[in-house]
Amino acid sequence: MPTAPAPALTRRELARLLSRIENGQAAADLARLYAVTGQAHVIGVTGAPGTGKSSLVNALTLYFRQSQPGITVAILAVDPSSPFSGGALLGDRIRMRDLAGDGGVFIRSMATRGMLGGLAPTTADAIRAFDAAGFTRIIVETVGAGQSEIDIARMAQTTLVIEAPGMGDDVQANKAGVLEIADILVVNKADRPDADNTVRALQAMLELGHRADWLPPIVPTIATGSGTPAPGITELAARIDAHRAFLLTEGRLVQRERAQLQAELFARLRDSLLAALLDRLEPGALDAILTHLTTRRIDPETAVRQLLDYLP
Amino acid sequence: MPTAPAPALTRRELARLLSRIENGQAAADLARLYAVTGQAHVIGVTGAPGTGKSSLVNALTLYFRQSQPGITVAILAVDPSSPFSGGALLGDRIRMRDLAGDGGVFIRSMATRGMLGGLAPTTADAIRAFDAAGFTRIIVETVGAGQSEIDIARMAQTTLVIEAPGMGDDVQANKAGVLEIADILVVNKADRPDADNTVRALQAMLELGHRADWLPPIVPTIATGSGTPAPGITELAARIDAHRAFLLTEGRLVQRERAQLQAELFARLRDSLLAALLDRLEPGALDAILTHLTTRRIDPETAVRQLLDYLP
Repeated sequence: MPTAPAPALTRRELARLLSRIENGQAAADLARLYAVTGQAHVIGVTGAPGTGKSSLVNALTLYFRQSQPGITVAILAVDPSSPFSGGALLGDRIRMRDLAGDGGVFIRSMATRGMLGGLAPTTADAIRAFDAAGFTRIIVETVGAGQSEIDIARMAQTTLVIEAPGMGDDVQANKAGVLEIADILVVNKADRPDADNTVRALQAMLELGHRADWLPPIVPTIATGSGTPAPGITELAARIDAHRAFLLTEGRLVQRERAQLQAELFARLRDSLLAALLDRLEPGALDAILTHLTTRRIDPETAVRQLLDYLP
Repeated sequence: MPTAPAPALTRRELARLLSRIENGQAAADLARLYAVTGQAHVIGVTGAPGTGKSSLVNALTLYFRQSQPGITVAILAVDPSSPFSGGALLGDRIRMRDLAGDGGVFIRSMATRGMLGGLAPTTADAIRAFDAAGFTRIIVETVGAGQSEIDIARMAQTTLVIEAPGMGDDVQANKAGVLEIADILVVNKADRPDADNTVRALQAMLELGHRADWLPPIVPTIATGSGTPAPGITELAARIDAHRAFLLTEGRLVQRERAQLQAELFARLRDSLLAALLDRLEPGALDAILTHLTTRRIDPETAVRQLLDYLP
């Protein structure tokens, strides 16, 4: 059996690189490391608070590590509601207990609140860092809430949406958005009495949707249940692998990566182009236009046209 | 007493304009109407699910309408978790019951999930439409969750953050972000036994913060309580007016508007500049670069530089 090539980053170098990514000082490193990325399976995990996301990620990671030699797992917990980084997210305490001391697991929390461009750029860079460091599975976990959930799904290869029984109306209202992003639906806390209802409701919703190629499976789990692995985890892991295998057919994975790279290029180009334009402005030109706007002498549309005239 | 000038939009025209805004077809109308905007007091309302935001907005609107002739209220309920527009948000049923048939109130729900650039552009345009239609107070309500909450706060003049007693750890973790956006803190459901603890916790948090000029007041309310107005609403309305008066001193309101307009200009310029660059690309140039990226022959940083070379 050939030995795996040594990863481009040690654990310690990875930790430092992640800090530089958070501080926006990692462009050169990421450009250098890009050539060795694109190997890992990137798994997004999202769900409302109280669905047991962190426990599920924990159980899944334990299973991955025990099921097959050579699988290593990086966990990126993205918290879009906190401006403070490096702190302990709620789920971290559970994770630390079970996974601490395993050299094949790396856990990092990132706060992205208020970050320029939302959570997407930093998260994409962190995924590349884990990839370059040789982790074969990268789990990106975030609270399911509007845009952050979509952003995570767009950069993952396989997206798990976690539900739990009996979460009431708020969650029902949110279900509408699930179809667009879920590759696998997980009903965690499946030992609760109303779990069957939740599974049936999701089933009904899926039947209304029309995704041509992949029908998201619904997997009941009890992430904190007794037994190793916990109930449902073996099936969930099999479904995750099946989705990866599906993506590897008919060029789907490359197609998905292409779309992600195009979105990333466009975001970077927008910023670079604006910076270039602002460089060309005469001193005071922007201030004058803003004053005309606040006094209603011109409107924003006209202001944009005036500023674009600075381009050759 | 002079009569107010006729608004630039009838109710019916406003409804149509809002639909065009959602469909991205309102640029010309908004440019034309901009001259008559900038009059309304824009009030942002945010808070976790279950804090009673909608009831509070309802009670506040009723009070505004009854307290002073000439005050009219537009309510914009922004739902960042739903991709479906025009539907009934959860809070709408309550609102419709109390406010329906009042010609001085206009209610609109907007779904912003997955919208280009997040919720900000559409929300800013809708605020201008209400402003042009002559509404004197515009309440923008959204679920407090990460970026959407910050976006709303950035375009409001006065931001209310709604808390409720006994919401547990998840809410505690979220408190960290409250200071950056709250102008007024509301402890709704203040008849619950642990309301005093919530007020004390918020007080302690405020004492740690250092906002030089404005100390956010903490107002206990019972939005669904008996009495007209409901308990706490009179004080809350007075605090909102006090914050507006504060903004009108020392040029603060104009300064804030200037910063908001600059952010809006920059966002529009980013998009326009990217469109202009893509227009200049040779056919196939972008495809070739994306292929080099997926095969790891170049990295994203290099790809951006290559594309920027198409600028003169």
